[in-house]
Amino acid sequence: MQAEVYMPTALGFNLNTEYMMRPMITTPTLLLNETVCRENIHFMAHKAKRLGLRLRPHFKTHVSTTIGDWFRQEGVQQITVSSLRMARYFADAGWQDITLAFPVNVLEMQTIKELAGKIRLNLLVESAEVVEILNKELDVPVKLWLKVDIGNHRAGIQPDNFQQIDNVLHAIKESVRLEFAGFLGHAGQTYGAGGAEEIRRIHRESLQAMHSLRARYKTQFPDLQISVGDTPSCSQAEDFAGVDEIRPGNFVFYDLMQAQAGSCTTDRIAVAMACPLVAIHADRNELVVYGGAIHFSKDRIQDEEGKQIFGQVVESTATGWGRPIEGVYMKKLSQEHGIIHATDEFIRQCKIGDLIKVLPVHSCLTANLMGEYRTIEGKSIKRMVG
Amino acid sequence: MQAEVYMPTALGFNLNTEYMMRPMITTPTLLLNETVCRENIHFMAHKAKRLGLRLRPHFKTHVSTTIGDWFRQEGVQQITVSSLRMARYFADAGWQDITLAFPVNVLEMQTIKELAGKIRLNLLVESAEVVEILNKELDVPVKLWLKVDIGNHRAGIQPDNFQQIDNVLHAIKESVRLEFAGFLGHAGQTYGAGGAEEIRRIHRESLQAMHSLRARYKTQFPDLQISVGDTPSCSQAEDFAGVDEIRPGNFVFYDLMQAQAGSCTTDRIAVAMACPLVAIHADRNELVVYGGAIHFSKDRIQDEEGKQIFGQVVESTATGWGRPIEGVYMKKLSQEHGIIHATDEFIRQCKIGDLIKVLPVHSCLTANLMGEYRTIEGKSIKRMVG
Repeated sequence: MQAEVYMPTALGFNLNTEYMMRPMITTPTLLLNETVCRENIHFMAHKAKRLGLRLRPHFKTHVSTTIGDWFRQEGVQQITVSSLRMARYFADAGWQDITLAFPVNVLEMQTIKELAGKIRLNLLVESAEVVEILNKELDVPVKLWLKVDIGNHRAGIQPDNFQQIDNVLHAIKESVRLEFAGFLGHAGQTYGAGGAEEIRRIHRESLQAMHSLRARYKTQFPDLQISVGDTPSCSQAEDFAGVDEIRPGNFVFYDLMQAQAGSCTTDRIAVAMACPLVAIHADRNELVVYGGAIHFSKDRIQDEEGKQIFGQVVESTATGWGRPIEGVYMKKLSQEHGIIHATDEFIRQCKIGDLIKVLPVHSCLTANLMGEYRTIEGKSIKRMVG
Repeated sequence: MQAEVYMPTALGFNLNTEYMMRPMITTPTLLLNETVCRENIHFMAHKAKRLGLRLRPHFKTHVSTTIGDWFRQEGVQQITVSSLRMARYFADAGWQDITLAFPVNVLEMQTIKELAGKIRLNLLVESAEVVEILNKELDVPVKLWLKVDIGNHRAGIQPDNFQQIDNVLHAIKESVRLEFAGFLGHAGQTYGAGGAEEIRRIHRESLQAMHSLRARYKTQFPDLQISVGDTPSCSQAEDFAGVDEIRPGNFVFYDLMQAQAGSCTTDRIAVAMACPLVAIHADRNELVVYGGAIHFSKDRIQDEEGKQIFGQVVESTATGWGRPIEGVYMKKLSQEHGIIHATDEFIRQCKIGDLIKVLPVHSCLTANLMGEYRTIEGKSIKRMVG
């Protein structure tokens, strides 16, 4: 984002007065509604407290120490990240208890050692082989969560593959400095749900696997804990009996995918891209905006009619954005171009140089590309660099 | 990429000796085969020369001054970019004649003015309104290409919409410092072709629109030029009669999408991601690698059976990579995880800590995410930063 002061008012541009008093937005810019974001954080912190759960939020969505502080203000002390680079970034900002929710990458052993010497680092394992490597290499204590596949089919051991689970647990018991924390799962299949009811059903089913594991292993490991917590389940479910810790991440911003799954309403989405309007094609009901795949990434949702949607256009308000506009959405993204399908009515209100505000399909990937946030009050909030 | 020297040979890792002598790869790393890349550049420079065309390559794929120099060594003097930031980056590296192949974003007028004062900057317009704004704001001469939609339906005026074309040309004639360069099109619909024959057919059809426009306007503008040139057409077509300039970009690396369209063979693909192997799930024929949507982006192709493919695994060789391995491909990407579908045979050869080499679906978006290249000789090549 450049701080330019070109003011083309004489040309009749549709400039809101909000932009007159601060560095003007001239290129695709990720806007953040801090109020909504803080409300999302408060909602989850409060819910965890009410249900007696430890909230260990996943910070991979925002990756910002500033936003991390907003969690601290809600009493959060422990966090989740998805890479060692992220762990180091937050450790440098004073976070002392971090779970790396990604299978141990043995090639990064040097970084693991450094970090485990500085903070309480919790790792995920799903094979005895990796436990043995960690045991051989580490000279400081580390807690290990056993990753269980509770339906997402990405990583983790099948919850009924007791042979493999026993192998991992045996390797941990044999080790010198490794401690078994418990079973950890991610029911990411909720992302594809068709509403809150389905989210709760998936949540119940995925928890059953965890309950069975706890029952089976509690005699052997009386202190074992259960950690779950995708954003949809944590947003919509109430029954977390037997769970010790939840790790939702996306809820800090939410996005269209979450709204479609039934995880949130669109007014809970805390980020929107401001895209300069560069061409108007009324004949084909299309607008071309500056804002493409290198800004949004390329996740998409399908609406009821099977249309691919790469972003949803919202009303532009004086201080940010408002409600989604029916029939006006991002239909195609190439590297820098976004093609918006627009109604005649919307096009009639558009002028070259307007900023079109667009809700992202997947806020984690969009935020990762943008590098910084600009609050609707005009403040810049940095993310981890490069 | 970190320069770590953890050498887990005692644990029986499958480390190639190539990695013993240089900073080890520990995280997802975009490998570049410089030889193939230079051959791709030479092929296109030579073809343009042979056909009497000006090659103005699109630099949005690599965005690297080092790779830009490889083009200079083939005699290239003029380039195309897709953002003003990119234009500034290459102008700072001595490129003096740059076309910004994106509709003028009037909000960036200050940057346009600065650049137009330093280098020969060529811009794309598709409305009289934008021409009038440029005329009012610019105080240095600029050449304008009229963007024509030759079938890609992204940006540009329909080639038979003479009223709008006349409006734009009239506005240019009325201006003080703006000069009409000619008609520019991008037949990006070739990306979805099903082979070289279809690419050539699309190329012929899209050229016809350009021929008609030249015939219609050549009396009025005797010097008008025609600029086309998507990578598939420039790779596979031979008939460029009536064309003055070609602007292919992706060919510098190519990728799976180009190979599927019939633009190249897979041995012409000059980049591959090295992904650490973090989990093996033989029971479901899957591998989990460190390498996800924030490394590859999320473009995909479909194979003949309708399977979604997010990357193709290739043989690992002593100095880089070899041929694609049938039945071993990236089936799913989340933020940091890649899930590879693998044959039993492939899985039997795998060990935790191996580097799996994966051809990207869309090299432009992958390279944009990775920030730098590592040649298979171990040299780091930087891209434009942040």
